Amino acid sequence: MKFGGTSVADIERIKNVARRVKKEIDAGNQVAVVVSAMSGVTNQLVAWVNQLSPLHDAREYDTVVATGEQVTSGLLAVALQELGVNARSWQGWQIALKTDGVHGKARIQQIDRDELDRRLNDGQVAVVAGFQGIGPDNRVTTLGRGGSDTSAVALAAALNAERCDIYTDVDGVYTCDPRIVSKARKLSKITYEEMLEMASLGAKVLQTRSVEMAMNHRVRVQVLSSFVDAPPNSVPGTLVVDEDEIVEKEVVSGIAYSRDEAKITLTRVSDKPGVAAAIFGPLADASINVDMIVQNVSEDGRTTDLTFTVTRADLERAVSVLKKEAKSLGFQEIKPDAKVVKVSVIGVGMRSHAGVALTMFRTLAEKGINIEVISTSEIKISVLIDEQYLELALRALHTAYGLDAA
Amino acid sequence: MKFGGTSVADIERIKNVARRVKKEIDAGNQVAVVVSAMSGVTNQLVAWVNQLSPLHDAREYDTVVATGEQVTSGLLAVALQELGVNARSWQGWQIALKTDGVHGKARIQQIDRDELDRRLNDGQVAVVAGFQGIGPDNRVTTLGRGGSDTSAVALAAALNAERCDIYTDVDGVYTCDPRIVSKARKLSKITYEEMLEMASLGAKVLQTRSVEMAMNHRVRVQVLSSFVDAPPNSVPGTLVVDEDEIVEKEVVSGIAYSRDEAKITLTRVSDKPGVAAAIFGPLADASINVDMIVQNVSEDGRTTDLTFTVTRADLERAVSVLKKEAKSLGFQEIKPDAKVVKVSVIGVGMRSHAGVALTMFRTLAEKGINIEVISTSEIKISVLIDEQYLELALRALHTAYGLDAA
Repeated sequence: MKFGGTSVADIERIKNVARRVKKEIDAGNQVAVVVSAMSGVTNQLVAWVNQLSPLHDAREYDTVVATGEQVTSGLLAVALQELGVNARSWQGWQIALKTDGVHGKARIQQIDRDELDRRLNDGQVAVVAGFQGIGPDNRVTTLGRGGSDTSAVALAAALNAERCDIYTDVDGVYTCDPRIVSKARKLSKITYEEMLEMASLGAKVLQTRSVEMAMNHRVRVQVLSSFVDAPPNSVPGTLVVDEDEIVEKEVVSGIAYSRDEAKITLTRVSDKPGVAAAIFGPLADASINVDMIVQNVSEDGRTTDLTFTVTRADLERAVSVLKKEAKSLGFQEIKPDAKVVKVSVIGVGMRSHAGVALTMFRTLAEKGINIEVISTSEIKISVLIDEQYLELALRALHTAYGLDAA
Repeated sequence: MKFGGTSVADIERIKNVARRVKKEIDAGNQVAVVVSAMSGVTNQLVAWVNQLSPLHDAREYDTVVATGEQVTSGLLAVALQELGVNARSWQGWQIALKTDGVHGKARIQQIDRDELDRRLNDGQVAVVAGFQGIGPDNRVTTLGRGGSDTSAVALAAALNAERCDIYTDVDGVYTCDPRIVSKARKLSKITYEEMLEMASLGAKVLQTRSVEMAMNHRVRVQVLSSFVDAPPNSVPGTLVVDEDEIVEKEVVSGIAYSRDEAKITLTRVSDKPGVAAAIFGPLADASINVDMIVQNVSEDGRTTDLTFTVTRADLERAVSVLKKEAKSLGFQEIKPDAKVVKVSVIGVGMRSHAGVALTMFRTLAEKGINIEVISTSEIKISVLIDEQYLELALRALHTAYGLDAA
């Protein structure tokens, strides 16, 4: 069971989490719990470090920031004991949860399970501080923001857990954002691959790395709400599982979107070999990630228009990098546009179904929505559109793919 | 160097502490720093634990509460690095600072100095989280409130430090409380024994245990202000040292007082063997500490009046314990009085000087102050008086013993 920051935001909520854990124990389950810092705590700690030194030592950053989870782990252990549940808190260095030495964004390498196993078999609940481990330098490491999800999945993998329940402030993964599409349905199951696409597109239910790890170790993950009660051993949320576990695959499982998109068009770029490298090289050097790319055939046959997307935060910097290289690149004009969004239909079923893209293009065309850029992967089709059509596009596609709740 | 909670209360003060440490480094010294939690933090953590469970598990209490010092240690290391000072934070489990297993009030047993030595010799400042260690169960232990002073003295002892500078919000130890006696002088030196008496009498500059440890390991401790600037290698505060280091001993070094006193008189207690045990036994069973005791000879020769003191917090409980035993004890009346204070003159010089007590009694008599109870030790004379005479008594005694500043 993993509880995020809002689920342990204050003493009352920690008591509530304890009651929830007790239910699982009472149902005869062995439980390890991973906790985040109480919400707001990590931000305060990070702010203090940054106030002292914007370019701080990552080792000391880790020492400071990991304390948030340490506090919650101890408090939850006390709350469980108060309910008569045998419980003990664990820090990364105690387990030990071994990571590489990349402080601030360490990767988990190995989890010693002997001591935890012995105690789980004795009926003791292990309350593990998320987000942290211990590096080869015998110092506290942290896994990067949102790392508690990764801690939970890694622990579940190490312990061969039947399930890894991630309690959060939503009650599952939806076919689309319910704040926009009122007919969105909660999915009872979704594949790792689909979840990865969802996560990377801004449906921030689970941290991307935790989904990758779940996929690699075949950990069954459930996303569910810590604010809704459900009987133990029930599966009220969304299960993220292997494709084999899903008997009736939907062609399209969900429609995701991202507002964090900006488009740059370079006009009349000379259409010769090496020009793409000349453009994207300087952007990569400036650590600017380029996502979608489209190149139009030019009328004159000697030049071309090149369009690509970056995150909105990178737009200004990308433009200035390209302007500096303007002479050598030889484009005519640079046209930035931050008023775009990316809409994606996602589904493992589209591997075996033709016509998924056609449905998307036709649906958008019927609504008069112009597609500016298209990119596809095996289980996803993404289009870039004008941001003013976002809600309209999502609702139309949701209906077109038969996802609407009855 | 040890910095208390008010000295590291916010980011600006932590920067200030870093500048102070840098001065010592620039003066060619090797420095280990011990830090407390930012002021207020420990209280918040303790409050959370108590809210969850008044009778909480001490192991989990330690896990939660030790995080305050961990945060400060990391922040100060960052602040030092920002000034170009090579620094590294250390938690109790990393050093390792080994304690016994008495969670919540552990005692230090051993400090591994190899790694610290190596780094100090490399010019690195060790920033050590105070108040915490690691127990035989491989879990974080804390040393009890105020334990950072003890951490600092223990570390100074382990490292054979030339001096242990305890930075606090006062600039030294005074002959008397300067808020009451305006002519009080700062002492440049005081012996361990005198400091112990001062500390146990409520002059809370240093934690009693830290002074005991300093005495046992002959650690030279300096008490000084973190808010007053002084050149490095100077000794602007008060040195707590061995008697041998003080050439010109004063007969009386200081006058301390405690308001936390309450008096209980039992009248007409039968004057026979075993009666004291019968009275103080039940109090001890109730964990009530009795301090001063005086027994008056009775007029009739068969009964006696017995007077003793407890802390004000224990008064009500002590009275109710005694009332319950009234029949078997056979006293006539029980007279509680919370309006008393204890005044003590302290000085190692009184071992070799007669007349110290006489001066005290005469001075108080001249001011018309009645002495209710007297107790003495080798280097201290304490009297209990009516609290309304406290200021008058302190000033008169301060003058009588020649302690007034010129």
